[in-house]
Amino acid sequence: MLNPSRRSLIRTYNLCFLGFGNVNQALVRLLQAHQHGLRERGIRWRITGVASRRIGWIADANGFDVAEILGGQAAFAGAGWQNVRQWLEAAGADVLLEASPLNPKDGQPAIEYLRAALESGAHAITANKGPLVYAYEELRSLAASHGRRFLFESTVMDGMPIFSLFQGDLPLVQVKGFRGILNSTTNLMLSGMESGLSYEQSLRQAQQLGIVETDPSHDVDGWDSAVKTTVLIRVLMGQPLQLAEVRREGIRQLTADEVRAARSQGKPFKLLCQAGGEDGRLIAKVGPEQIPLSDPLAWVQGTSSMVEFETDLLPGFAIREANPGLEATAYGMLADFVRAVS
Amino acid sequence: MLNPSRRSLIRTYNLCFLGFGNVNQALVRLLQAHQHGLRERGIRWRITGVASRRIGWIADANGFDVAEILGGQAAFAGAGWQNVRQWLEAAGADVLLEASPLNPKDGQPAIEYLRAALESGAHAITANKGPLVYAYEELRSLAASHGRRFLFESTVMDGMPIFSLFQGDLPLVQVKGFRGILNSTTNLMLSGMESGLSYEQSLRQAQQLGIVETDPSHDVDGWDSAVKTTVLIRVLMGQPLQLAEVRREGIRQLTADEVRAARSQGKPFKLLCQAGGEDGRLIAKVGPEQIPLSDPLAWVQGTSSMVEFETDLLPGFAIREANPGLEATAYGMLADFVRAVS
Repeated sequence: MLNPSRRSLIRTYNLCFLGFGNVNQALVRLLQAHQHGLRERGIRWRITGVASRRIGWIADANGFDVAEILGGQAAFAGAGWQNVRQWLEAAGADVLLEASPLNPKDGQPAIEYLRAALESGAHAITANKGPLVYAYEELRSLAASHGRRFLFESTVMDGMPIFSLFQGDLPLVQVKGFRGILNSTTNLMLSGMESGLSYEQSLRQAQQLGIVETDPSHDVDGWDSAVKTTVLIRVLMGQPLQLAEVRREGIRQLTADEVRAARSQGKPFKLLCQAGGEDGRLIAKVGPEQIPLSDPLAWVQGTSSMVEFETDLLPGFAIREANPGLEATAYGMLADFVRAVS
Repeated sequence: MLNPSRRSLIRTYNLCFLGFGNVNQALVRLLQAHQHGLRERGIRWRITGVASRRIGWIADANGFDVAEILGGQAAFAGAGWQNVRQWLEAAGADVLLEASPLNPKDGQPAIEYLRAALESGAHAITANKGPLVYAYEELRSLAASHGRRFLFESTVMDGMPIFSLFQGDLPLVQVKGFRGILNSTTNLMLSGMESGLSYEQSLRQAQQLGIVETDPSHDVDGWDSAVKTTVLIRVLMGQPLQLAEVRREGIRQLTADEVRAARSQGKPFKLLCQAGGEDGRLIAKVGPEQIPLSDPLAWVQGTSSMVEFETDLLPGFAIREANPGLEATAYGMLADFVRAVS
């Protein structure tokens, strides 16, 4: 609900974008499209920093022209910042929006970027799963000790409210486990093979859509699913699980014939992420499983996703997302921005 | 997230229960079970008022013994309050938890109860859909002008976070429509008929589970679904739709043979609630429809429910609840209590 007393108190926030690929560009367009709605919540924004491999580190505390930034025409005022801390300072950053590529090995350099942002007094918002796998607890504490927010809604199921719900609007609920389909590349590939494509053809189809990680092994070998499983366990279940502890199997060994046969038997293959207690021990696993058609997960097609949670208080609570585009990821970051400053 | 600074500031809230049937009794047991978690959020509670047809209006600002209240043994200290305003005052109410029976004709007397609570400076929490259909805008304004909250998460899909999400944690999202299965009696009856029961047998089965409204016509003729559809439209879409404007058809005219035939053709009947724009006009309807098995709504069985929203920013966002019990409804009220005082 809008708080009427807020309307008169409009504040302008300096936004810094780290990584300026599809996601952060979509975010800038979304910020533009929702300028009016943000204003009603007392929020104005300007872009005071952009950093990417192509652009370098540019900062201007007075704000860049948004059209020039989107057109790649920004004057390189202040280019020459040598590191993220200098750049954040030159930009007078209030919020860092981090969408640099995933490094599944150690989460760097994104962890260092987010650390720098929080230490400089900015809110840190990321669409990058690496820092959550390798430094979630540290970044959470750092945010708390600086009175800032560390938010990451876009890392799992794009802008769907998973973390914001369980960390805010669902008081007292304990998450005991979950089952879900969380990787769109492999789910689209399985749908593709079911409809007659070969493994290679279905991978190419996914690549043409631009949804495959630069290294396709991150998707097809289950790394992306395992990373998301780890993030959900660390954040929602409060368990210090390591990525290496997730039993992980991908879809590479499945042939198109097997995939088609499974579907025609009414038990299609899905790359399932699962976590739950077995004999008091937490088991986390990712792997292809045949799901009966009576299970809603069997009907999650293409790039859609779904996760159902086992909790103490919300029987069968499940969230689904259908055929998201880039805007859905960007929305998660936009919503995190609003949450951080509200 | 817990705010560490809050832990030292524990406040005790006086709770008043209006209607003391299954839902509010389950709520009291849930409050007891989560005493520790509430304390960590700075929340203590005591019961200072209970009102029901059986008990009368009882109030004690020092708090009743909870076991006595649950056992129906409460001393009738102060019995003799003649109306809700006197009773709230005698109880020193901080929060009214209203779960009196639905009156689909005009929402009374629950509207008057909630109005009295807000005017007396208490938060008003209800599990009752009547007041939303007939007085949502008024009660919302009244709450705002008294700096109190009017919350009603349990009215649709029990404790599933629908209103709290769209009114809080999903900034900027516009709801344009929805499709859902929201009445558990009719859904259970359709499942029962599919598995071989007659219409009458499946109604009796639902009645034995205790989920049917006192007047079964509220369920089977689609009134409950139409009321929920109205509530979702009024609250989430901000449109002043009247209950009478919902095109409403129930399941009474369906024979068990038709229901079974539809299922075996792979297009089962579901009592669907729908809202959306057609030619710029909002259309709201409730009625039995045959749903193909490729649609997840076709797989919502028994007392489960599911709703998918059409929005501008969250592609295919859907929420499901599976086989809830009374505790799920009570949880919605407990969560509203925490939201109101946090």
